[in-house]
Amino acid sequence: MRVIGIDPGLRNLGWGVIEVSGAKLRHVANGTCRSEGDDLADRLMSLAEQLRRVLKDHAPDAAAVEHVFVNSDGAGTLKLGQARGIALLIPAEAGLRVGEYMPSTIKKAVVGNGAAAKAQVQHMVKLQLPGVVLDGPDAADALAIAICHAHHLQSAGHLARAVARAEAGRARA
Amino acid sequence: MRVIGIDPGLRNLGWGVIEVSGAKLRHVANGTCRSEGDDLADRLMSLAEQLRRVLKDHAPDAAAVEHVFVNSDGAGTLKLGQARGIALLIPAEAGLRVGEYMPSTIKKAVVGNGAAAKAQVQHMVKLQLPGVVLDGPDAADALAIAICHAHHLQSAGHLARAVARAEAGRARA
Repeated sequence: MRVIGIDPGLRNLGWGVIEVSGAKLRHVANGTCRSEGDDLADRLMSLAEQLRRVLKDHAPDAAAVEHVFVNSDGAGTLKLGQARGIALLIPAEAGLRVGEYMPSTIKKAVVGNGAAAKAQVQHMVKLQLPGVVLDGPDAADALAIAICHAHHLQSAGHLARAVARAEAGRARA
Repeated sequence: MRVIGIDPGLRNLGWGVIEVSGAKLRHVANGTCRSEGDDLADRLMSLAEQLRRVLKDHAPDAAAVEHVFVNSDGAGTLKLGQARGIALLIPAEAGLRVGEYMPSTIKKAVVGNGAAAKAQVQHMVKLQLPGVVLDGPDAADALAIAICHAHHLQSAGHLARAVARAEAGRARA
């Protein structure tokens, strides 16, 4: 099965797709959707279009999005929230169940330490996905999210259910 | 031309459509989209589906969304941001230009006072749209946003451009 991880942002939205078979992980693709347009609605539409294209190109069976770290910067949180709405909506509309993980959970899954530094996460992403060429920091984060979700699906025995839901979604489309 | 106002919320998303001809306003319809589903992605998808249906049923030529009031409640701001992302995306994907207004601008346009109370806004919405039956407070807010946008389009001479863009969008769909 294939898992897509999405790291939402209004300017740059990172994504990464991995293949999961048993306990093995393999890199499929990663990249960054960059929003274009003058006003906010156009930028969100541009992200939605690019993300739909990624889902079509790489046909993941499950998706996961990082839980946003809410801070005291209200305007920043709002912007991120808007991009996150798109990151959740588009996979759901493609029939995928969308997991959500706290940053500390992702770090723990990838590095074994919930407080790991960004560089350490990138290092472990590269180790676990041999041959990967990272498109950038947002795409690296997205791959970490995908790895975390893969671990969760493997351990919780959700693999079959996620695949069935994705197939039903594609049949409807 | 028709204008839709949208008051975004994750639980209840209010909407209101008015008809604008010259300086005259007429109520077309108003209502509330209520999100359904267990997880966040499903709830956002439910809002998106309902909002698409509203746009199809009432074919507005322009849309406007309230600028969210950002406060110190980060988690609340994030939720609202996610719903707002949907409220901006769906009309944009239908080919509409989406205006954004601060709450004080909306109150000033409807009541003449940027610090007006909610009850006063509802009262003026009813006065300006004779015969309207309000679906609830969120739908009332949405109609106020539509009225504000109508005033803006009238005063700025944007009516013709907004109609042309909406028609082009419908032709593409």
